[in-house]
Amino acid sequence: MTKEKKLKPNLPSGFVDRKGNELILKDRITEIIKKNFQLYGYEQISTPSFEVSENIGKFLPDEDRPNSGVFGFKDGKDWMSLRYDLTAPLARYYSANETLLPRPFKRYQEGSVWRNEKPGPGRFREFSQIDADIIGTKNILADVEMTLLLADSLNKCGLNKEEFIIRVSNRKCFFGMLDWVGISNEKQRIAITRAVDKYDRLGIKGVTSLLGKGRKDKSGDFTKGVGLNQKQIEKIIRYIDENTLFDDNRENFIGSATFAPLIEYEDLSPLYQEGLEELKNIFKKIQLSEFKNQIVYSPTLVRGIEYYTGNIFEANLLFKVKNQKGQEVEFGSVGGGGRYDTLVSKFSNNPAPSVGVSIGLDRLLVGIQQKDNFFKKNKIENFGPIVICLFDQTDMAPYYKILNTLRSSGVSSEIYTGDGGIKAQMKYADRRNSPAVILYGENEAKSGTVTIKNLNVGKKSSEEIKTREDWKSNESAQTTVKLENLLDEIKKIIKSN
Amino acid sequence: MTKEKKLKPNLPSGFVDRKGNELILKDRITEIIKKNFQLYGYEQISTPSFEVSENIGKFLPDEDRPNSGVFGFKDGKDWMSLRYDLTAPLARYYSANETLLPRPFKRYQEGSVWRNEKPGPGRFREFSQIDADIIGTKNILADVEMTLLLADSLNKCGLNKEEFIIRVSNRKCFFGMLDWVGISNEKQRIAITRAVDKYDRLGIKGVTSLLGKGRKDKSGDFTKGVGLNQKQIEKIIRYIDENTLFDDNRENFIGSATFAPLIEYEDLSPLYQEGLEELKNIFKKIQLSEFKNQIVYSPTLVRGIEYYTGNIFEANLLFKVKNQKGQEVEFGSVGGGGRYDTLVSKFSNNPAPSVGVSIGLDRLLVGIQQKDNFFKKNKIENFGPIVICLFDQTDMAPYYKILNTLRSSGVSSEIYTGDGGIKAQMKYADRRNSPAVILYGENEAKSGTVTIKNLNVGKKSSEEIKTREDWKSNESAQTTVKLENLLDEIKKIIKSN
Repeated sequence: MTKEKKLKPNLPSGFVDRKGNELILKDRITEIIKKNFQLYGYEQISTPSFEVSENIGKFLPDEDRPNSGVFGFKDGKDWMSLRYDLTAPLARYYSANETLLPRPFKRYQEGSVWRNEKPGPGRFREFSQIDADIIGTKNILADVEMTLLLADSLNKCGLNKEEFIIRVSNRKCFFGMLDWVGISNEKQRIAITRAVDKYDRLGIKGVTSLLGKGRKDKSGDFTKGVGLNQKQIEKIIRYIDENTLFDDNRENFIGSATFAPLIEYEDLSPLYQEGLEELKNIFKKIQLSEFKNQIVYSPTLVRGIEYYTGNIFEANLLFKVKNQKGQEVEFGSVGGGGRYDTLVSKFSNNPAPSVGVSIGLDRLLVGIQQKDNFFKKNKIENFGPIVICLFDQTDMAPYYKILNTLRSSGVSSEIYTGDGGIKAQMKYADRRNSPAVILYGENEAKSGTVTIKNLNVGKKSSEEIKTREDWKSNESAQTTVKLENLLDEIKKIIKSN
Repeated sequence: MTKEKKLKPNLPSGFVDRKGNELILKDRITEIIKKNFQLYGYEQISTPSFEVSENIGKFLPDEDRPNSGVFGFKDGKDWMSLRYDLTAPLARYYSANETLLPRPFKRYQEGSVWRNEKPGPGRFREFSQIDADIIGTKNILADVEMTLLLADSLNKCGLNKEEFIIRVSNRKCFFGMLDWVGISNEKQRIAITRAVDKYDRLGIKGVTSLLGKGRKDKSGDFTKGVGLNQKQIEKIIRYIDENTLFDDNRENFIGSATFAPLIEYEDLSPLYQEGLEELKNIFKKIQLSEFKNQIVYSPTLVRGIEYYTGNIFEANLLFKVKNQKGQEVEFGSVGGGGRYDTLVSKFSNNPAPSVGVSIGLDRLLVGIQQKDNFFKKNKIENFGPIVICLFDQTDMAPYYKILNTLRSSGVSSEIYTGDGGIKAQMKYADRRNSPAVILYGENEAKSGTVTIKNLNVGKKSSEEIKTREDWKSNESAQTTVKLENLLDEIKKIIKSN
């Protein structure tokens, strides 16, 4: 017999498997956020992964092989793309259902988004977002609601008020500043915004390169720059420098809630003034909220997404986050959003100014998990099921009776379903982190009892246990009880876990 | 100004938007099933949407445009595909983590899967599945657990025992029958399996065509047949005919739990005998369960998936399901699974025989929703938030006070965030199906009261309400209370909803 060539069980780069407590936490956090969104009056929708490419932006692949930030497929004559966010699909959804929907339309949605970008440490090509948006209103109260909703959601997920900050700025202020620099070309403005957006990650030096000729990263890949002249770059950098309210420790974030735009820039341009008025207006209302100290003005916040037109905001954690190697990392934001007043106009002549927020679930989870004893404090179980060991399959009735006793009381439990003997079964229970195993053999059958081995106390390596006698010798951890007392005994063990 | 050409907010074919109660129900059902899987001792994993194409099957696209049932992308030198189920990725995951995982490995996973197939009514190219599998065991108890887990999960989702049935069969029996027909070619066997799998949908005539030269569907599309000769087809059809235990009303399902293979076929082939023994063995154990009447032997069940090797099963609803037009539809199964003993061997020399179950969440939801008063009985809210009408934004403090009173008691509520006057606000509350609106104007401010309009009683069309006076005239539905009594009053209204 020739040996078949085996496949390598690899994943494509930029994708990742997840398991265990992380997923239990994700389910729980998702539920908390959804409940909060409902409390704020949002209704849920779900749009599919794929959209007609043209409908979700200018990322339409112009070659047969998609390579422009999205995953695109040729579908018959047309192209379709996996969504890269939940906002562009919402604009499409709203336009398709406009006449039937309330105005404003408040919706939330949760789901995966995909980016066909260069993967890096902590940067994946698929990630989970949960978004809330209000479509069809110019009212600044909607902007206020968004920042408060973000703050309240993070708080309800288990982040204390001193553990996060929401930075607020306005796209009009940044573009107003660019008026002052003498840059009015829309494409160039967006390119500059994207470059400055990388300030947190690349610092002033990186941004300076990106505003000029370009930047080579560690891997040697080159990103073409915006191509501004020295004088233009200096003006932009000066604005960033003088407006940076926080130091590297981010300690200055705290207590800087007062809205205090730098007076020097107040006469920059009418657009700048307009942005400032909007900011003053939302901060006046934010002062009425319990999160007034968490929401701060941060003029250097720009956000890289093209469709923003007014107030923008972003949430950051105030504690250090480590990677899997234990190194502190530049962590980025756990959520953000802003006003986009023209996105829906791609579909409709009826304007629908809008504002929204997006929470990066995966990133938020990474942060939250690093809080001290988070899993324990939140009672996220890290133990497996009670395992009922299997000796003889001839008469399964008593096994199922034991199983039903446990399961009908909500105790996670199972009859061992593998092929191994007692040694393999103990090893299995060990790997599952089971609180206890149950033994039901000839002796137990005769006396109407079950034997319970508590795996939490007097833990004996499963490696040493080969026979039932070995197993019995560790008396301290085992007890034999009448069948009717089984449930109480197991509950005691789980409680002490 | 030239008018910009607007985009059409269409979806690609085979994809669909969802909203409202359907999604609340989906979240609830998902949670019920996950909790049940945990109760049975399964742990959650999550694998990404994309896998290396080669790793999840023979569906590797052989042309630049993927067209073989999966969505494939060229990623650098390699191809990657969106998963078409959750089982093939599990085999990859298990192989990648084999040494660290318990054996057997019991996991559940929920997520979207994608099929690049011809869409049709009720047939989508993206849908949700939730799967439980046991990897690394030959033990027949694992097969038993799967059928019971499926039955129990459906039951806990709200389906009574008389509302569903789980049909069980064995791939070895079907292949053993094909031995008798004289067909031993593996590819041909799979093709026949796929044809017979369409029996429920296409009937004997359709299957006969597919076993022969092929079949043209209503749209004119031709599916190539297996190309068997008349004698072979007759033998297969005879087997199906004589083994069909249920009539079109499916009433015969009920009460046919007793395992009674037709004696005539017992000497078909050694493979057939082996399958029969496995079936007898699992049914012996199923008889011990509370679902013994829901799990029945159904020899014509074959299932179209290639990787099954032993026992297979499928869950059907026993009540009629209608489409959106109110027509009864051939509904298909809401879940199913089976044993696949060789799938993991693609990666590893260490055999890992396995068995699993998959629940089709979207389909299950369609079915469940059609039960009488399902939403009401399950307290799935179909009303919107309490809307606090907005008259003057100068002093928002009292509005936020009212809002906090409601939200801190868990009452879904909002300050109107739109741009409209009172008429638009009433129309909005109407569209949101709000139980009540709250009015806080000059009079209320002076007297420390709020006015509540109960939208459930004395409903007056929002179209007629143009001023505050109009609104006031409908006295029966409105009441003015002290601020401290607001919450009680609102709770009363919600309760009576």
